[in-house]
Order: sequence, then structure tokens, then C-alpha cells
Amino acid sequence: MDDILIKDALIVTCDGSHSIIENGVMAVSQGKITALEQTGTSAAENLSAKKIVSANGNILMPGLINMHCHAADSLFRGLVENLPLEEWLGRVWIAEKAILTPETTYLGSILGLAENLLSGSTTVMDMFWYPDQTVKAAKDLGMRISTGGIFFDLPGIGGRSHKDFIFEANNFYQKHSSDDSVIPAVLPHGSYTVSPQNLSEAKSIADRHGMLFCTHAAETQAEQNDIKARYDNSVIRHLDKHKLLGETSVLAHCVHLDEKEISLLAQSKTNIVLNPMSNLKLGSGIAPVKAMHRAEINLTIGTDGAISGNDLDMWLAMRLTCGLAKGVNMEADALTAEQVLHMATINGAKALGKSNTLGSLEIGKNADFILVDINNSHSIPLFDPITHLVFGAGRSDVTDVFVSGKHVVKNKKISGLDIEKIHEEVRQLAPSIKASLE
Amino acid sequence: MDDILIKDALIVTCDGSHSIIENGVMAVSQGKITALEQTGTSAAENLSAKKIVSANGNILMPGLINMHCHAADSLFRGLVENLPLEEWLGRVWIAEKAILTPETTYLGSILGLAENLLSGSTTVMDMFWYPDQTVKAAKDLGMRISTGGIFFDLPGIGGRSHKDFIFEANNFYQKHSSDDSVIPAVLPHGSYTVSPQNLSEAKSIADRHGMLFCTHAAETQAEQNDIKARYDNSVIRHLDKHKLLGETSVLAHCVHLDEKEISLLAQSKTNIVLNPMSNLKLGSGIAPVKAMHRAEINLTIGTDGAISGNDLDMWLAMRLTCGLAKGVNMEADALTAEQVLHMATINGAKALGKSNTLGSLEIGKNADFILVDINNSHSIPLFDPITHLVFGAGRSDVTDVFVSGKHVVKNKKISGLDIEKIHEEVRQLAPSIKASLE
Repeated sequence: MDDILIKDALIVTCDGSHSIIENGVMAVSQGKITALEQTGTSAAENLSAKKIVSANGNILMPGLINMHCHAADSLFRGLVENLPLEEWLGRVWIAEKAILTPETTYLGSILGLAENLLSGSTTVMDMFWYPDQTVKAAKDLGMRISTGGIFFDLPGIGGRSHKDFIFEANNFYQKHSSDDSVIPAVLPHGSYTVSPQNLSEAKSIADRHGMLFCTHAAETQAEQNDIKARYDNSVIRHLDKHKLLGETSVLAHCVHLDEKEISLLAQSKTNIVLNPMSNLKLGSGIAPVKAMHRAEINLTIGTDGAISGNDLDMWLAMRLTCGLAKGVNMEADALTAEQVLHMATINGAKALGKSNTLGSLEIGKNADFILVDINNSHSIPLFDPITHLVFGAGRSDVTDVFVSGKHVVKNKKISGLDIEKIHEEVRQLAPSIKASLE
Repeated sequence: MDDILIKDALIVTCDGSHSIIENGVMAVSQGKITALEQTGTSAAENLSAKKIVSANGNILMPGLINMHCHAADSLFRGLVENLPLEEWLGRVWIAEKAILTPETTYLGSILGLAENLLSGSTTVMDMFWYPDQTVKAAKDLGMRISTGGIFFDLPGIGGRSHKDFIFEANNFYQKHSSDDSVIPAVLPHGSYTVSPQNLSEAKSIADRHGMLFCTHAAETQAEQNDIKARYDNSVIRHLDKHKLLGETSVLAHCVHLDEKEISLLAQSKTNIVLNPMSNLKLGSGIAPVKAMHRAEINLTIGTDGAISGNDLDMWLAMRLTCGLAKGVNMEADALTAEQVLHMATINGAKALGKSNTLGSLEIGKNADFILVDINNSHSIPLFDPITHLVFGAGRSDVTDVFVSGKHVVKNKKISGLDIEKIHEEVRQLAPSIKASLE
């Protein structure tokens, strides 16, 4: 792995004090950040490397961490529209069952993860049916992935039994735990699709191996009503009762919460993933972000799958998170751009248990970083880089992506992968996907 | 002007029946659409033109109509953050007074209108201090503009008196009314900054010449409180009392409305411009779009200025308009992508009194159209082009823009204008802009 020197960069570190280094230089060796300083300091003048990349004055920042995705669902993007979550899921599952095999899951994963990578997400937490295929796709793209075995009580894909799910969750850990680019997790679908017993079993597998426990929670009012009818409890209280909250738990959505539930989540240090675009589009609602932020919950950001969104754009998710908190509360300072940029970077790393190695540009951390073009008509003038990143920048401004110092996206092109071929394969599959619902 | 033939296009017409022509061809002659049909029909085979453009299977659709903008405010993008509208405006006006001259207004207008054009807006309604400069910038870019004299009772830019505003509003009409690319309007700032007498005077000038009457209205709760305190009335009732509503009126925002006001707007056939990003970011609130849509008000979409937004992205505005209506009402079918795409195209044309010539691809209309790339990882597969345009596409997908058949943006580059030079001039001005608030 070559040593790299990035020069002439406006460095947005996302460190604890929101440091920005104007006219900065960053050195990378063996995939780690070894120096980070202003050009013209005497140390910077002595830095050298085989590979020198000029940022041309553009922004250098940590790769984004997309904390909730179903990458392979990109195969079904735009297939089911204008339905609320529950009816929508019913349709989605019919299409998934008809189409998904390990091979098509790999194809969809490459498509969805390529979109993530091209838009600057270097780490993705993904929940899907064939997690080994998701890992394979992530490795082919050179990005970091957190995923693992799912649990699902209803008849799912591939006719798997509960025993199969247990085997696969354990097996995933055995296969991938020594891989630095994989963060293993156990991902039961949700409390309305997995029994308390099976959720607890998933949690015990996660705990046994020190893995994350990730599930959908409190996404819709209908889900709250369902859990209330079945267990006479709200979703978060139900999870709390079964000891499923905690520092290694990651709950996606949390749109419908009362004060007590917010306090349970805060006390247990449970991590939350906000998915604002999906929640709006499916009519699920708007999460109480300001209240959760005030309660000091570790808030992170995700895109959800492209079948709800309809894309995988963390820039949109950041802008929505910040804008909705301001707009819904009618308070222009309800949440700041700094706070939201941290949600999409270092807070994600914290939720993954990787804040020592990911989520900010600091010496010793993994060199997962991106370059963001600011030489265009929507970025000029630029008075505050962080406000610009949350409220002005977009996926198309990401020109280069590095993971562990590897240059995986170079001038908007994925290195070493024929993405046109992937697009063509998806287009070939599209008529069957459409027919699956006819 | 060359005759043009666009081939191999997925044509989204935005006509009354949301027609889509797969594998389509469109002919343009003398700046007007002369044919629109499927390739392989016998008529299409006989079409010919000097200039042939292949859309390569991409989407061909009408140019977007951005119905509320302050293009030159792009100079102040990101300068004032985390403040509610009223305090924010106080700061913005200090910076505007320090910086704006006809020359800097031209520079800011070029910057803001270039961003509009590059992202696919071919017509912009703009409110600003030196409207002749806005027109000059629009003409230099080859786009269509609706603007005109403003009215503002407080000490404004350039020390103008009420008499000056009257002169300028009339003079604007005299100068530009014969220009096909200019749609003249009179644009008093708002009912909290312009007295009823002066609003009425502005309206009489508009009516005398058959111009549009455009103003900010009901943007914040503070504005409602202010008008209530001053005139013992709500904003829309106040405008109604002074006979300022109607088919040639365009009201920007309308976030804070009661049922009676929605009904007044509907009965008077007043046009409304939704500005969802600005309303969220300034903490103004969320407009009651579903209720206004049900009341059959002509809803159009705008970006507002980049000083609030912080960019001029109609794609984001479309996605927010549709997503917020679904999310706030917790109804996945509260508003459809078709309805929102019409708001950003033909409804804008209706509000401008130009539905016979703009806003959709139909034979005889002006050839204002754009090409939208769908060969990328966030656009594949594509089951429904209209859903994709509202929920998946973005500004960077716009590759080519034509206005009256002129190829004004070619492969993402503005024709005949050195945009880098403009960027550099704005960068040179940026330190003074920053210093204006220090």
C-alpha cells in the first residue's frame, strides 16, 4: 500500500472540536492517517510520499457512515409506490421472494453499494437476506460493511427455518470476524416480525461474540398499535422488557416515541439511526430528533433501502435531518449543521463500536476519506464548510473516495469494476422484477 | 435557428394526461416543438433536421420552472445561519446594503441563474433590487426570466423612495414587455414591509399593464402576529381586503394558513409558490400542501434564495414537497409524484399566464426542455420515470438544457459563458461580503 499525501485541501476533520484546517495537508501510511496539518508549517514541508494527490482546494473529510441500508433492494427501486409501510412491505416481499437468489442479491448489493460509495459513504450497515453476498459486493468495491445474519419469523426468502437463521448468524461471525473491513452484527427484522424469544436468541448470539444487535423499531404508528395489541406494550418498552436495548444495540427509525421511551433509549445508551427520506415517503412520520438530541442519545443517519427512498443519498439524509428538526419545531437553531455532520460520521463510528478507528480524520485512524468539489455554481461563495456540507453539497460533488488509503473512487469512477456491466445486468433483470408483481 | 431532432428519448411530456413516450423523437423548428412521437411510426421516420441530438435513452422533459428565487442573494450563501426569518432578514439586509450595486447584483444574478440553468430550470421568477441586472444576467445565459420592480417601505438598497419604486416598476414594463424571454411582474416585498396603500399602488401598476403581482405571504407565525397587531387581520385576509388576490397574483410561501384563508386563495384562483427547503431551514414551518392541493389551488414550486436554502435545487424542492405532504400527514398517498412534477412545470407556466407556450412538451409550445441522465447507479432500474424524476433524480443528472431550441447547456457546461471567471469574481468579493457583518 503506497504512502499518500493529500495536499491543498480544506480539511473538515469531524473531530470532537469540529476542527477545520484551511490549506491543509494529510499524510497516510499503511492505510492510517499519520499527519494532518496546515501547509507551510515546518512539519508539513518535510512530509513526503510516493503518491501525491492535490485536492485543488476542495474539501477533504471523513467518509460518510450510512447506518441503515438494504443495498440489494435497489433492484426494486420505484417498483411499489404510494403505499404505507405495511401494505408496501407486503408487495415488496412478494417481489423479493420471486427474484432473490444469492446471485441476484450480489447484483443488487453491488448496485446499491456502488451508489453508496460513489456518493461518499465508505461504511454501510446493511440488513438483507444473504449477508455473505453483501460482504462479497462490499469487498469487490473496497468499502467497509457492517452486516450479518437476519431473523424473520414469517416465511422469508429461501425457505429458511429459525434454526437456519441461528446457524447463519453464528456462521457469519466465524467467517468474517477476522476481516478488518467487516463489522459483524446480528440483525433481526423487527419486533412485529420476530417473536420476543427469537429476538432474545438473536441478542444472545450477538452478545456471545461481541457483535452489534440491530433491528427496525417504532417506524410507524401501525407498528406501535400491533405491538400494543400483541404484547400490551409500546415497541421500545417491549424491547426494554426483553433486555434488547443497550450500547451495542442499533435501532433503525424510532419515529413514534413518547417521552418515557426517549428516556429509556437515552439511559440504556441505545444507538438510533434516523432515516428521514424513507419515513417521509412511506408516510411513516417524522422522528422527534430534537428531543432525542437533547436527551443525548447517540443519533446516526441512514438512507434505508432505495425501494423506499428511492435512492441512497446520505447528503439528502443529512439535509433532511437538520432541516426537519428546524422546520417541525419552528426553531432555526433546533439542530446545527455541525451536529448533523457528526451524526453522519463520528456518531456512526461510535454506534459501530469503532470510534477509535473510523468517523473522523485524526492521526492513527483509518484513512477512510473523501474529496468534495467546491468549485461549482452551487458551492460559491463558501463561508462555512460545515454548513455547506449539510445544506449545499450533494452526492455529485464527491469526486474521490479512499478506504484504508485505497483510492476506490477516482474522479467519480469506481476503480477496478465495470459498473456499466452491472447496470446492464440489472436492466436485463428488470422485466422479471416488474413481472413479479403482475 | 437550426431545426433540431432529439432522438432515442424517454419523453416525459408533463401534458394534461401525464403522457410518456418511450423510445421517442421530438422535432423542433424555429424554437417551437413541431413533432413528438414514438420512433418507428411512419411520421417519425420522415422527420429530418440539420441538427440531430441523441438522448441515448435518457429522459427528455420540459425545463423546470422555479417560481420563487432571489438569484443574486447567492452572493450571501451560508453567511447567516441558525436564525429565524425575522432576525435573519435583519442580518441579510445589512450585508445586502453594504455589498449590492448594479454590478454586484449582475454578478450574483449570473451565479444564481447559472445554478438554476445547470440544474434544469429554464424559467425563473426572481425578486431582487436591480431587476434590470437580473434580466441582463438571464439573457446572457439564454434563459427565461419573470421579474420586475420591487416595493419596500423600509430604507432599502440604493436609497430609493416610493416614487422611485413606482417609476422603476412602470419603466421595467416599458423596457422589457416586448421581449419574449421576459415575463414582467411587479413584486412588492410583503405585507409586513409594504403598507396597504403601497401594495395597492403596486397592484394597480401590475393591472394597468397586465403584469403579475407577486409577494411574500404568510411565511412565518411571527409575520401573522405582526399583521394581526398592525391591521387586526391575518395575512391572507389582509391581502383579500385590499383586493390583492386573484389569478394574476403569485404568493410565495403560504406556510401559515387557516381553512378560511385556504378557501379565499382557492376562490380567488391565487397562485401559490411552495418553498419547502427555505421554510424548513429558517424554522418557518411546513406549508399545508395537502389541504391546498385538495382545494384545487394552483400550486407551484420555488427554491427561494440560496441565502436561505442554501442552494437553488428544484429537484430537492420537488422531493421535499412530495415527501413532506406524505410524511406530515402520515399518508403515503397524500400527494403523488405526478402531481408534484406538474407543480414544477405546467403549474408554474399557468401561474405565469404562459400555459399556452411553456411548462409541457406539446406541439406548438416553446422548445424549453432538458435531458436527464438515467444511466447511473441511482437511476437503475427505472420502472416509472415520473417517480424517478421526483424521488431519485437530482441536479447533477441534468446534462443538456435547451431554451427556445437553443442549446444553452451542453454536457453540463453553459454555452458561451466563462463560468470559472464568474466564480473567481465571486471569490474575490467574498472577503468584503464576510466583512460586511463583522
